[in-house]
Amino acid sequence: MNRDLYLGIDIGGTAMKYALTDGRGAALFEGEVPTLPADPIASLQGLRSAIAPLTDGDELPRLAAVGLACAGIVNPESGHLGRSPNLPGWENSPLGQHLRSVFGDLPCTLANDVNGALYGEFRHGAGKECESLIMLALGTGVGGGVIIENNLLLGAHCGAGEVGHMQLDAAGPSCTCGGRGCLEAYAGSVGILRDARACTGEGVAKLVAEQGAALTTADLARLAERGDEDAREIFGAVGRRLGQAIGNLVNVLDPDKVIIGGGVAKAGDLILEPCREVVPHLVLAAEAKTVPIVPAELGNLAAAMGVASLAQEKETSG
Amino acid sequence: MNRDLYLGIDIGGTAMKYALTDGRGAALFEGEVPTLPADPIASLQGLRSAIAPLTDGDELPRLAAVGLACAGIVNPESGHLGRSPNLPGWENSPLGQHLRSVFGDLPCTLANDVNGALYGEFRHGAGKECESLIMLALGTGVGGGVIIENNLLLGAHCGAGEVGHMQLDAAGPSCTCGGRGCLEAYAGSVGILRDARACTGEGVAKLVAEQGAALTTADLARLAERGDEDAREIFGAVGRRLGQAIGNLVNVLDPDKVIIGGGVAKAGDLILEPCREVVPHLVLAAEAKTVPIVPAELGNLAAAMGVASLAQEKETSG
Repeated sequence: MNRDLYLGIDIGGTAMKYALTDGRGAALFEGEVPTLPADPIASLQGLRSAIAPLTDGDELPRLAAVGLACAGIVNPESGHLGRSPNLPGWENSPLGQHLRSVFGDLPCTLANDVNGALYGEFRHGAGKECESLIMLALGTGVGGGVIIENNLLLGAHCGAGEVGHMQLDAAGPSCTCGGRGCLEAYAGSVGILRDARACTGEGVAKLVAEQGAALTTADLARLAERGDEDAREIFGAVGRRLGQAIGNLVNVLDPDKVIIGGGVAKAGDLILEPCREVVPHLVLAAEAKTVPIVPAELGNLAAAMGVASLAQEKETSG
Repeated sequence: MNRDLYLGIDIGGTAMKYALTDGRGAALFEGEVPTLPADPIASLQGLRSAIAPLTDGDELPRLAAVGLACAGIVNPESGHLGRSPNLPGWENSPLGQHLRSVFGDLPCTLANDVNGALYGEFRHGAGKECESLIMLALGTGVGGGVIIENNLLLGAHCGAGEVGHMQLDAAGPSCTCGGRGCLEAYAGSVGILRDARACTGEGVAKLVAEQGAALTTADLARLAERGDEDAREIFGAVGRRLGQAIGNLVNVLDPDKVIIGGGVAKAGDLILEPCREVVPHLVLAAEAKTVPIVPAELGNLAAAMGVASLAQEKETSG
């Protein structure tokens, strides 16, 4: 019996989540350790120490491969981490080399964090039995990933999947990228909270005043779920913009399924129902109009599980 | 020496263009015969008769495979032609079956017309030595195609590549698809001529009055090339909208190159220069900002040459 373990690591701005999976991709152990903002090697050493009791010993399963997911422009071939705004102390560094310096000669795999999450959903979650997928991850910003014919799409410069910066209205609200009217400016939490603060509806204004700087999209979703029409309309507008972006993506890629993940997506049908209403009006090919638009299933362990699977497949294939 | 010939056919609303290519893809013979709007089989028989003097005889090269390109939703696997607005008498028909009924047991290949043109450019034109490409074909409407890792992207329902219906402004001008603010509504000739007719500039208004219903984008381009600022600005606006669409596509796909074809693209730098100015501001990944945006090279024989290559590769591979 194969008792090998595969380690998947998901580097966040404050914590590194990890999963140790078996040969079938099941997460046998999971946990998290702090991300040291200025020291990738020490961060990874901390993680290695944390899992040592599970992997380092003659009687224990062998750690067979390591996958690492990280926000930013990740080049899986060179191991280079480029632009990565949430990890200023890590960006423009040889992340693959750091990983090997800590994990020795184990096969190592890198992926962008949303690509990792998408691969997790593809192998173990909402995208099982699909060959082509689009994922949109709605968080502070909006990330994305694409799978075509069972492979993650990286692009010529590892720049593919940046669906958050699809410009939906050249005269739209400012985006963190310096542009205007990007999907992220509507459907990232920064944009949603901006709209909430600008809302004059009584219930929303009261919530904004109560929560102040601590206001979250979850607060707003609770208000909407209690029936507040203004809060519902804020999410409705998000859903319609998401639908515009998805319609555009489906016209270009015609995937088997579209998966919506990220913290903002916890608002669920508040966003997904208006989104699903818009998409068929925008998609040209008749059979593609009804593309399933579904929530992610694996939650915040998706990226760790995804890169563990990528690492396992790379190790198994040679 | 391999003396086999490969036939590529490009079905248009009024004429079927064809190319007979040799084993290296060079078009040895080309020509066109009428498209019979209500009779696909008789149309193809007409074409077969036209090329008989080149292929039917013991001393002549052998016709080894046939490729056919057609506007609309083409399923290369089933041979079905779905929605095809410019060929109402052909749409929803078993086009692959028609092709085999005329060309007997020869290996036959089908493709959407823009995919055919893209494949032609990929093998023999502006996309040689690339692995990933996006093509936008600016004609009456706006079509598109995508190549990823040397393969045409078809999508789950053969609906991929419909870049013309990317919605760039939900409050934009009406599009033939029933939507608003699609790329086609700005960059197809219908949209460009609409803008010309609405233009109050002296030179453009004079041209519109002179040409009446016969006005073409070529007329407008000539005026712009003579320095008319209003005509230049009409193409400038087209270029910026094209740039918005290309920026969005590059953020999703990060291709090696973007190819612009179609009759409207003959306006050349009137459109391409403003387009190239916009794109770097919209693309996130640093190295993808400078993606080459180039004119197509093969002109209106691209689709016939492309499907001839597809047919040859299918025949050679099995």
